[in-house]
This record gives sequence, C-alpha cells and structure tokens, in this order.
Amino acid sequence: MDDLKFNSDGLIPVIVQEAADTTPPRGRVLMMAWMNKESMERTLATGKMHYWSRSRGKLWFKGESSGHTQEVVRWYVDCDKDTLLFEVRQTAGACHTGYESCFFQGFDPRGNRLPIGEKPLFDAGQVYAKP
Amino acid sequence: MDDLKFNSDGLIPVIVQEAADTTPPRGRVLMMAWMNKESMERTLATGKMHYWSRSRGKLWFKGESSGHTQEVVRWYVDCDKDTLLFEVRQTAGACHTGYESCFFQGFDPRGNRLPIGEKPLFDAGQVYAKP
Repeated sequence: MDDLKFNSDGLIPVIVQEAADTTPPRGRVLMMAWMNKESMERTLATGKMHYWSRSRGKLWFKGESSGHTQEVVRWYVDCDKDTLLFEVRQTAGACHTGYESCFFQGFDPRGNRLPIGEKPLFDAGQVYAKP
Repeated sequence: MDDLKFNSDGLIPVIVQEAADTTPPRGRVLMMAWMNKESMERTLATGKMHYWSRSRGKLWFKGESSGHTQEVVRWYVDCDKDTLLFEVRQTAGACHTGYESCFFQGFDPRGNRLPIGEKPLFDAGQVYAKP
C-alpha cells in the first residue's frame, strides 16, 4: 500500500468494475474516479468506496446522498503501481445520469456513434435533486 | 469527438478492456493509459490502439516493438466526456511484465495481498529485450 504512486496532486486513478464470479474478473466497467490517501484509507477501513471529488475538492463517499453505495469485493494494483482497479457490488446504478455505468454511449472503431441499448435504472432528477 | 475533455496536459485517460461477446461488455480490464488528440486520431484511422507515452513523451503505437497490438472493437465515452473505455482484441498479453493484464496483483477489501492466480503469457525479457 505504501508503495502506491499518487500523482503530483496526491491522486491515483481508480477504475471501478462490477464484481463478477469469474477469476480474472469479467464485469462491466462502471466508472473511473480518483482517490487520495485519505479516501483510500476510508475505503479499506469501511469496505465502501470513497473517492476524492476533484470538482468539489473534498472527500466523496459514493452513495452518501443517493444511497447508491459500492461495496468492495476485491481490488488490484497495476504493474507500475499508479492505477487501481476495484471490483464492487453496486447498489442501483453507478452513473449520476441514472444509467448503470457511466460508459453508456458507444462508438464504432471509426468514431460513429452507436445507439444506446439500455435504459436508465433510476430517475436521476429524483435521486440527485437538490431540496 | 470534438467535445471530449482533454486535461490541462492535453490528455484523456483510457481504460482498455478485452472485447467480449456480451452487451454491455464484460471483459477483463487489461490496462489504463493516456491519449492526446493525435493518438486518438491515429487510433480511429488505423483501428489499432495508439497512446501518448508520458514517460517517453511521444506517440506510442501499442505493440510497435512487441507485436502485441490491440485491435479496436468498440469504444465508449463516459457521462462527463473526460474518460474513454476501449474494447479491444489483444494479441498475446497487454502488460510489459508478460501477464495478460496489468492488474494481476489482487488484494482483499482490507488490503491483504492475494496470491497471483495466473502465469505470464510470454517472456517479457525476450519480447522487450533491447538489442
């Protein structure tokens, strides 16, 4: 853990993948976010994903307001120790738009947009509405 | 394509996943790397993954020396257009260590190292040896 390479902003990129029953994991990629040391420590201590929100400049407990938490099942460090991959059990959907994954808009190899072949899992307006 | 958000260094993170027959894709995550506009254009023009090597400061055609190229099958932009996910057909293995994926070292939720349950697919010393 001590040898993880955080970048000059103190952050490390985290790929988040739905937990699969396969070894190696073959689940859907849900999102990418960033952790600093504190969010990494909180994640390991609680078993729930915590990030660093670059836009809000603060610790971000995923699901704190929406209830859409992510339970850690297993995680990986890459070969040069500057990227993490977390397998998680995702409640509802990971994306703030309501889709299961943030990667719902596909393209063919030439860059032509593909139809979106799925529906949002929840009403984002409702879940993320500000009172 | 024109609305992709490259960071202040002109780069965008790219998650690389083995192509799967499933929709949505459920393949193994192979690596993460970075693209600038030029590598993105080359990737779309050739159908083979091109990155920006931050360590070498130059365009990086994956597999140029090793032959371990990555053929683009499909790709995705995330909801806020600052991360890409590419589904690829990987020749041999993606990792410079010889493993199929750069994410071969797993940990349990508390951070305890797990045994590596696989073998390298090729002899990295041979493939990446400098003459």
